[in-house]
Order: sequence, then structure tokens, then C-alpha cells
Amino acid sequence: MSKIRELQQILKKKGIDFAIFCNIDFERFDHDMAYFSGYSNIGVLIIPKNKKPFLVVPKIEAKKIKQRGIKVYSPKKGKKLLESIKEKIKQNKIKNRKIGMNKEALTLLLKDAIKKNFKKSILIDLRKELYNLREQKTKEEIKIIKKGCRISDEILKKCFKIFKKFKTEAEVKAFLEYEAKKKGCELAFPTIVASGKNSSEVHHQTQDIKLKNGFCVIDFGIRYKNYCSDTTRTIYIGKPSKNEIEIYNLLLDTQKEIIKKIELNEKCSELFKEVSKNLGKYGKYFTHGLGHGLGIKIHELPNLTEKSKDKIKENTVFTIEPGIYFKNYGIRIEDSVLAAKNKIEILTKLPKNLLTIDLKK
Amino acid sequence: MSKIRELQQILKKKGIDFAIFCNIDFERFDHDMAYFSGYSNIGVLIIPKNKKPFLVVPKIEAKKIKQRGIKVYSPKKGKKLLESIKEKIKQNKIKNRKIGMNKEALTLLLKDAIKKNFKKSILIDLRKELYNLREQKTKEEIKIIKKGCRISDEILKKCFKIFKKFKTEAEVKAFLEYEAKKKGCELAFPTIVASGKNSSEVHHQTQDIKLKNGFCVIDFGIRYKNYCSDTTRTIYIGKPSKNEIEIYNLLLDTQKEIIKKIELNEKCSELFKEVSKNLGKYGKYFTHGLGHGLGIKIHELPNLTEKSKDKIKENTVFTIEPGIYFKNYGIRIEDSVLAAKNKIEILTKLPKNLLTIDLKK
Repeated sequence: MSKIRELQQILKKKGIDFAIFCNIDFERFDHDMAYFSGYSNIGVLIIPKNKKPFLVVPKIEAKKIKQRGIKVYSPKKGKKLLESIKEKIKQNKIKNRKIGMNKEALTLLLKDAIKKNFKKSILIDLRKELYNLREQKTKEEIKIIKKGCRISDEILKKCFKIFKKFKTEAEVKAFLEYEAKKKGCELAFPTIVASGKNSSEVHHQTQDIKLKNGFCVIDFGIRYKNYCSDTTRTIYIGKPSKNEIEIYNLLLDTQKEIIKKIELNEKCSELFKEVSKNLGKYGKYFTHGLGHGLGIKIHELPNLTEKSKDKIKENTVFTIEPGIYFKNYGIRIEDSVLAAKNKIEILTKLPKNLLTIDLKK
Repeated sequence: MSKIRELQQILKKKGIDFAIFCNIDFERFDHDMAYFSGYSNIGVLIIPKNKKPFLVVPKIEAKKIKQRGIKVYSPKKGKKLLESIKEKIKQNKIKNRKIGMNKEALTLLLKDAIKKNFKKSILIDLRKELYNLREQKTKEEIKIIKKGCRISDEILKKCFKIFKKFKTEAEVKAFLEYEAKKKGCELAFPTIVASGKNSSEVHHQTQDIKLKNGFCVIDFGIRYKNYCSDTTRTIYIGKPSKNEIEIYNLLLDTQKEIIKKIELNEKCSELFKEVSKNLGKYGKYFTHGLGHGLGIKIHELPNLTEKSKDKIKENTVFTIEPGIYFKNYGIRIEDSVLAAKNKIEILTKLPKNLLTIDLKK
């Protein structure tokens, strides 16, 4: 069953007349629109419970869209997108008593605009249902995500090959994002490049500062055909101490081991606990979750945290990213992984042995 | 008077106990937080009507912030940002009957979280007040915007210098964005590179397709220290016809003339009408506004549209970007302009004479 029809089943069950997903401000995208329609520019998607979905987009966009057989309208001159939607809803005799939307994406301003056009409507949040719907990927989605991970692998490989020429964190980030854009991809999230002491921060904001000796965490993800990839590699600038190599290898072995152990129906919290245990005395320095689902959003289900109630379902894609963070440095190793029916497949295939780079040479 | 104190005056006038600005999801930033605090990563800013403002940010961020003398807290272990805010509000004896926020930025999900922590509160929208507050720039802001425009000029200059090596629209976009990131800047908006027939679209989504002969519109803006720049140049790939050169020069003269005519207190709608008139028989192909204010957001006041009621105020920064769009091609020329007390200053200083490039050579 297509994801649109799955959503329509939910709408019927909840007595919701139609769902609305708005992309009106490019700084506040509702990925649900791209998820159901494949279209990711400015526009509004309507999915009625028992009629065909349609998009309303600016005239200039309308000409270009011929995707998934979704009907496309554009507003008459001087009309706004939401006014045009009101008109189409009326024309198509679609009720508007209960309207479904995603509370995570809808701003209060857009809510007001919807309420203005559909005065007697009640808005119903579909956030949880949408997370559940997106968790298990279709064949088509898996194909896209795999391709995205391959592209991301190539970019990181190229980056490490010429790493010596970089002088600052910002240069590394700029290079990675440049390569992504050159291939027509977008970013899944702002790239993290954290060298020296900065590597001890889980979410370091990459700066225009010199690369320092020591571990350097590089967390990078692209958005290919709207779908995210997510990889972290930690390299070493300079010459690591014996102790640093040992800790790196402990983390690496732990990451490899846990991926081997993943099985369908397994509790995510158990995977987290296993990793924590395997890190031994360093377990207390593992200060974030083990991973998260990804797809059209960078954070989806399942949650692989200590207290998660999620289980590993078939055809889910998620990250496995244990990390250790001391006061002076941190290490994280992350892959995107697919739990298919008969096997667990690592989608990000970049080597993981500790890469050391001497910037002086 | 500082902008924080200006906001506090508004809060007092409206009987609002404090304003809240949340940056919790990196895909939905509330630029108001950076505007008032200079801090732009994950966090929440509270500005009470008659007490000192404070930030609540993740622990890892707290160490790094020492900006504008704003107090910084971080949540105790296991607590969420908003729970921590509730605690601080209580500790500091700040009332919470009326809470100000920005409807344009706040999602329904965040609203729920605020309501959960401040059960008896009423939320008041400050969107319009914030737009008004941000319209006139401080000396410090103007300095930053000027610097950003200079950086953007350099990047575009470099791009045009090596333009021959580009093969696709995506490559040009990637290069521009790469140069911005290398300098530690972010983007003000997704760069537009529209060649051939694509130039006839005002908001073309740059694609991984070959650059075509004809006009090529490049609309590029960076975010330097949180502030936006915005420039458009139209170049010509191949050899323009006499008619094409004439139309380009008509648009260019019109753009230059109108900038010379801008005066403080002038009606924006008059500027628009003047441009429309000066374009003569091509006026009907000028299908968007003449420009928009810019600052911490890419679209601020004033609006330079046909029906705008705004006037040109002192210390405002805005774009002047007339364009002509035919069926087969389009041209747009855009500068960022400062209306200072005694003069109108063009901040983006890149040459505007028609640049022609032969990709074959």
C-alpha cells in the first residue's frame, strides 16, 4: 500500500476530512509535503481522506511538476495559495470540519491562515502518526537512501584524500558541502567538523579556526532526492598515543559488534545497554543515544536510546553512532544501517580504521 | 537605546511579562534569538519586561557564550530547556501571565510545550512589533552588514573570474556557497543560478543541468555574523543580440536611476511606480516587487511593492532589484542599499555592466 493510501486510512479512522502540509517559508520546511508528493519547493499539499491528493503551487512551479500523478493547481492572479486551496476544496466537494496537520512543522502564523480560510474547522495533530508511517521504508525509498549513502561515501573519501590541504575546520566543512551541492544534493544537517578540544563537544558548531592536532570528528550527511544520509568518522591529526589508539579501537570494535548483533524485533534500549556495557569503564563517557532513524527527516523512528520503547522493525534505516567524550577530546563512529528482512546492511561503507593525517608533511 | 530595551518598552506597554524566542530545531530557527543575544545555536532566550534577559542553552554551549553580557544558564541533568526556563522564571520572580512570542517562528508543538510549563499564561504575538523594531539598523548592525556585502562581492567576483570552468548551474551554486562556507559564513537563502530559459523564472530551483547560452541570473546572499547580504547579477553566456543588450541596459539604467532618486521619507510605492514607468513598454514584464528590507532575516521592512504603505526610514537596509521576465529569458539586477542620514549608499559594489562569457573558449 502506498504511503498516501496509508495516510488516508489514518484520516478515515480519525474522521479527518483532509490533511494539509505547507511549505511556504524556505526556512521552515514541512518535509511531509516532499514525503507524500516528491515535490519540495514552495507549495501546499492536500490529501483528502477519500479523494485524490493535490498540490497548490506558484504558477512558475506548476509547469515543472509531473510527479507521482498528483494533480497540480496554481492560484489565479492576486490570490494566495491558501485562498486557492479553499476554492479547490469547495470545487471538489471535500469537507473541512476536521483538518489534519503536523504540529512540529506548522507555525502559529500558518495555523491562523488556515483557520481564516476554514473558519469552522478543528485542526488535528498527526505528528505521531506521521512518524510511525515514515518509520518503515518502501523499496523505492531504500533505493534512494542507498544511493545517497554511496554519494556521501564518495565525498568523504575525496575529502580524506586531500585532507592535508585544509587549514581550518570551516574549510573542511565547506569542501564537503561543496561536493554535495556540485552533485545537486542538499545537506541533511549543518556539517560538524570538530578538531582538538572541540571534538569533546557532541554538537560543535564548526568555526573558521585552525585544525588542531588530535582527534577530529567529522559528522556529515547529505540530502539526495529529499532523503538523508548520516555518517561520522573520527580521524587523527598528528600522531596518536598508544592510549588514544586503544580507546579508538575499543569504540570501533564496539560499534562493529553491535551492528552484527542487531536483529529484527530487538529492543532498541537493549542495543544501547549492550554498547554501554561493552565500553566498560568508558561507558560513562558515552553521553548520547546510540542512534536514530532517518529518512526524509534526519531524526525519525526508531530511537536507539536508553529509555526507548522502540523495537527494530523490518525495512527501517537508522544510525549506529556510539561516542566517547572526555574533557579534552571526543571520538564518534557512525554508520547508517538498514534492517532488511534477512539481513542487517551497513549503507555507509567508508573504512573505519583510524586514519592518521600529518598536516605538516 | 538598545534593541533589547526597545523591546522591553513594548512589553511594558502591552503588559507582557516576558518574551520567549526558541531555537530548538535547527530546521526552524527563530532569528529573534540571534537578533537580541548574538547567540544563534540551540537555546531559548527570555527577555522579561523589567529584568535582565537570559539564555538557557545546552551545557556544552554554555561554556562558550560570553556575549552582550546576557546571563546564560543550562538545564540540570535530565531536565529539558523549557523546564529549566520555568525554574529560572520562578527563581527570578518573573510573572508569566502574558508571554510574548513570534507567531511566524513558533510551531504548534513548541507552543504546547510553553503552555505545558506556563499553564495559566496567554501567548501574545509580537511579530509586527519585531518587524518594526528590526527595520532601522544600529551602527553595529550596519557595520556587520557592510562587511557581509564586501565578502559577498569578493565571492561573486571570484566566481565570474573563473566562470568558464563551470559546466552546470549546480556547479556555480556549489562554488558560491563553498566560498561562503570557507569564510565561515552561512547562506542567506538557497542560491539561484538560472540559465537559458530558466532565467525567465523568478525563483528558479538551481539544478544539476548544463549551463545554457543566453542570460544567466545569479541571485546570491550570505549570512555573515547572522546578518544577510543579497545581490543579483545577470551575465550573458555566448553572444547577446543587439536587442538583448538594449533591454539589459534599459534595466540597468532604470536600476541606477532609481537608486539615485531614493530619499528619506519617500513612499516605497512611489519608487516602485517610477521603475515601472521607466521600463516603458517592458514595465508589464516586471512581475515582482522592487525590493525588500534585509537584516537578520532576508525579508524585513520596508516592502518596496506597488501597494506598500512603507516609507524609506533612516538607517534601513533594503534591496533594489528590478527585473524583466519574458517567456524565454529573464534579467534581474539587484543591490543591497543603505539609506543613511545624509546619503544613499550602495553596499554591494560589484560592477553591473553586462558581462559576457563564452563557455567554448
